[in-house]
Amino acid sequence: MTAPTVERELLPFLEAAVSETPVEEIETFPAVNTSAEQAVKRLVIINWSGELDRMWPTLIMSTAAAASGYRTSVFITFWGLLPFVKDQKRIVGETWMQRMLSLMQRPGISHLKLSKMNFAGMGPWMIGKLSKQYNVAQPPELLEAAQAMGVEFIPCQMTMEMFGLKREDMIDGLGEPAGAATVLELMTEPNTASLFI
Amino acid sequence: MTAPTVERELLPFLEAAVSETPVEEIETFPAVNTSAEQAVKRLVIINWSGELDRMWPTLIMSTAAAASGYRTSVFITFWGLLPFVKDQKRIVGETWMQRMLSLMQRPGISHLKLSKMNFAGMGPWMIGKLSKQYNVAQPPELLEAAQAMGVEFIPCQMTMEMFGLKREDMIDGLGEPAGAATVLELMTEPNTASLFI
Amino acid sequence: MTAPTVERELLPFLEAAVSETPVEEIETFPAVNTSAEQAVKRLVIINWSGELDRMWPTLIMSTAAAASGYRTSVFITFWGLLPFVKDQKRIVGETWMQRMLSLMQRPGISHLKLSKMNFAGMGPWMIGKLSKQYNVAQPPELLEAAQAMGVEFIPCQMTMEMFGLKREDMIDGLGEPAGAATVLELMTEPNTASLFI
Repeated sequence: MTAPTVERELLPFLEAAVSETPVEEIETFPAVNTSAEQAVKRLVIINWSGELDRMWPTLIMSTAAAASGYRTSVFITFWGLLPFVKDQKRIVGETWMQRMLSLMQRPGISHLKLSKMNFAGMGPWMIGKLSKQYNVAQPPELLEAAQAMGVEFIPCQMTMEMFGLKREDMIDGLGEPAGAATVLELMTEPNTASLFI
Repeated sequence: MTAPTVERELLPFLEAAVSETPVEEIETFPAVNTSAEQAVKRLVIINWSGELDRMWPTLIMSTAAAASGYRTSVFITFWGLLPFVKDQKRIVGETWMQRMLSLMQRPGISHLKLSKMNFAGMGPWMIGKLSKQYNVAQPPELLEAAQAMGVEFIPCQMTMEMFGLKREDMIDGLGEPAGAATVLELMTEPNTASLFI
Repeated sequence: MTAPTVERELLPFLEAAVSETPVEEIETFPAVNTSAEQAVKRLVIINWSGELDRMWPTLIMSTAAAASGYRTSVFITFWGLLPFVKDQKRIVGETWMQRMLSLMQRPGISHLKLSKMNFAGMGPWMIGKLSKQYNVAQPPELLEAAQAMGVEFIPCQMTMEMFGLKREDMIDGLGEPAGAATVLELMTEPNTASLFI
């Protein structure tokens, strides 16, 4: 259970996110773990909000967890499903109402807004500038890293139906759509931390 | 410990919420559980926000948990207490300030607003339409289901005092008002997942 | 491991927060605990939001937890770092952009805004009045109490860099700046509840 090549390549990139963990520690961690099955740690995030400032903790926590050898699942639901629509999609949905909703709340990981101080886009621009300047990884890169490192993104079936989203509207690599009972199972596994973000 | 009649009747209604769990599984779950006391799973939700889009996850997660045999407690606090005021109450509180607050933030489960895209009520109307069209249960029905299935709703004593709310202002069937220490006890029981929504 | 004098003096003040726990119970709790090391309960809060109405649950839950003998850690990150800047600081940061951000979102525990119903400051004023009238402890007092009772506040290193904040900009008594991996370790300890607020 050594880290596959793709993860090793991503590690320097993730050092900003998990800067206080020395790389050697990450690499030796799984070896310690295999002895006792129940020692595997898990992180479950319910990613409910689709805002830039909340996508950050979701993506940083989940990539950091995967980098530390945790089994990591992110349930993407309600507004939090929209950033996982393909970036180039402008209007999605089947009914006029669904299409209008997607028009008001543009989907895709590159079109995120702040939960406050949005100031017609100036807030996200400033936060984006600052975060780049200080080497904080951006949401599209973090999402790519998370997927490469094995973070499981589970779309909420009910939300997909309500927003009229089909599998082909969503980015590649997502898990099977599921519901609340599946997430509850995951959240109550031993050594599991769960967060609603 | 078989499911009482009322739950059995509610199960079809809840299938939208827990659609991926076959009904047979739900019915046999408690039998497996009784052998080992510590295997009982629990869900604790701190329901802090009173908004439509956040009441949904609270109610869907808690009914899904109760349907799967979890002991489920929802601590209703701050803005999240207001949806549990009786629907017909328009203005509540003892002082003019409390009454004015309730006027600005109308209490009751049928008067919820979205956390964003409210658009003078059009957002909730559209989301309400869409959710009904796609068979997502509505907050008043979900609340009724949750209570019938044994989800325990615990009002925050401090919030009740601050908003000047009395027991008779609140809907029937709530638990005893309690505080942070009680919730902490619940959250740190074995096999417990907790969420702040 | 009896409660030190400072805690004993703070206990009456905290009775509002943990009103349902009799004082005797708190004082005898640690004695029960010392027998089994793994019985120590823990609370981890990720304090992401810097708003008045969300700082309250963070501070009330963490002081209540510390009063009940829990090991309590609060990771202060993103907007949630700003209330931990010294109150007298008006503009912080190194670049013009960071300084402008701090101007738009005034830092310090005495300058908190509500997440909604802000009404140009009238909302916080009314909530402040009401909470004082009903003996709910205020954020500055709660923060002081939390620190005195041993709640560990851990600043997010990445956020400090992004907002251009130095150690001397922050209030005294904070822990070492850390990152996501540290918090994940804490969150997955046995008997730990974690919340994202």
